[in-house]
Parts: sequence; structure tokens; C-alpha cells
Amino acid sequence: MSDLEKAMSMMMSVFDKYSGAEGNKGSMNKQELRAMVEKELPRLLKDAKDKDEVEKLMDALDHNKDNEVDFTEFVVLVTALTVSFHGIRRR
Amino acid sequence: MSDLEKAMSMMMSVFDKYSGAEGNKGSMNKQELRAMVEKELPRLLKDAKDKDEVEKLMDALDHNKDNEVDFTEFVVLVTALTVSFHGIRRR
Repeated sequence: MSDLEKAMSMMMSVFDKYSGAEGNKGSMNKQELRAMVEKELPRLLKDAKDKDEVEKLMDALDHNKDNEVDFTEFVVLVTALTVSFHGIRRR
Repeated sequence: MSDLEKAMSMMMSVFDKYSGAEGNKGSMNKQELRAMVEKELPRLLKDAKDKDEVEKLMDALDHNKDNEVDFTEFVVLVTALTVSFHGIRRR
């Protein structure tokens, strides 16, 4: 597997791990999103315990307003973060 | 580093590796795109030597029509592939 294939596979595995915790296995509810952010993106939310931050993130990601984050909505988050980190990295 | 941070970092490193080969270090020209696809996404193009396939891919990715694929355009490709592979993986 190439590095890019590994990166893509890792994104899928991370999503499946947290979306599969409870309820609908194909998407993340708010608790699952909080757990994912706390463990996988610790720097994203200074303090994920701040209910508001995770609420805002869910709102921003949940385009179809079903109170769940599906894989496409998850990848939009990862993409936005990756582009902004890459911009910072190249300065 | 978490798995998701590793995946994001890998995407950045893969892009930097191929975009840095020649010319503008911040984007991939057609030769760099071909080399990236051949090595990193061998299954994407049955036979990347088919000039047409890489030409079509460049056309599809190069939104600002500067004959280069920048990081944001690259991540759009990775996102689209990841979402489609994830859909196939969950069937």
C-alpha cells in the first residue's frame, strides 16, 4: 500500500471506529464526535469539554441536519483542517 | 500523533514530495501529477501511460486552469476517492 493509500485507509478506519461506538454505525452522533475530536484532534478544541465548541462543530459539519456526522461530512472537516495546516506548514 | 493526525500529515508529505520535484514547488504540473498517480494511486488509472487518462484527471482537478494542481485541488481528489472507497468498503 502506498503512503497516500495508507492515509486514506487510516481516515476510513478512524471514522468507522468512532461512528461504530453506538446507535447508527454509519455516522457519528454528538457523543461519538466529541470522543473522536478529544482523541484524534486534541489540539482542535482547546478544551473539548466546553459543550459549546463541540455543538458548534456539529452544527458546522451536519449539512443535512440529521444530528449525525456521516463520512462525507467527516472528510470535509479533515480536508479543511489539512489544507489549513498545510498552509501553516509551508510558511 | 493520533491516527487522524498521521493521515493528514501523510497527505501533506505525499503532496510536497511530488509537487517539489520541479518547477513551482507549491503545485504539481502534469509530469508530477502522473508520477504521483503512478506511484501513490496505481489502481486509479489502469495504465497511467495512457496520456489521455492523466490529461482528463488534470482537467478535472485544475479548477483555476493554471495547468497545475495545487494542494487544495489535490485534497479534493483524495477526498472524492476516499468517500467512494469507503462506500465500497461498507457494502
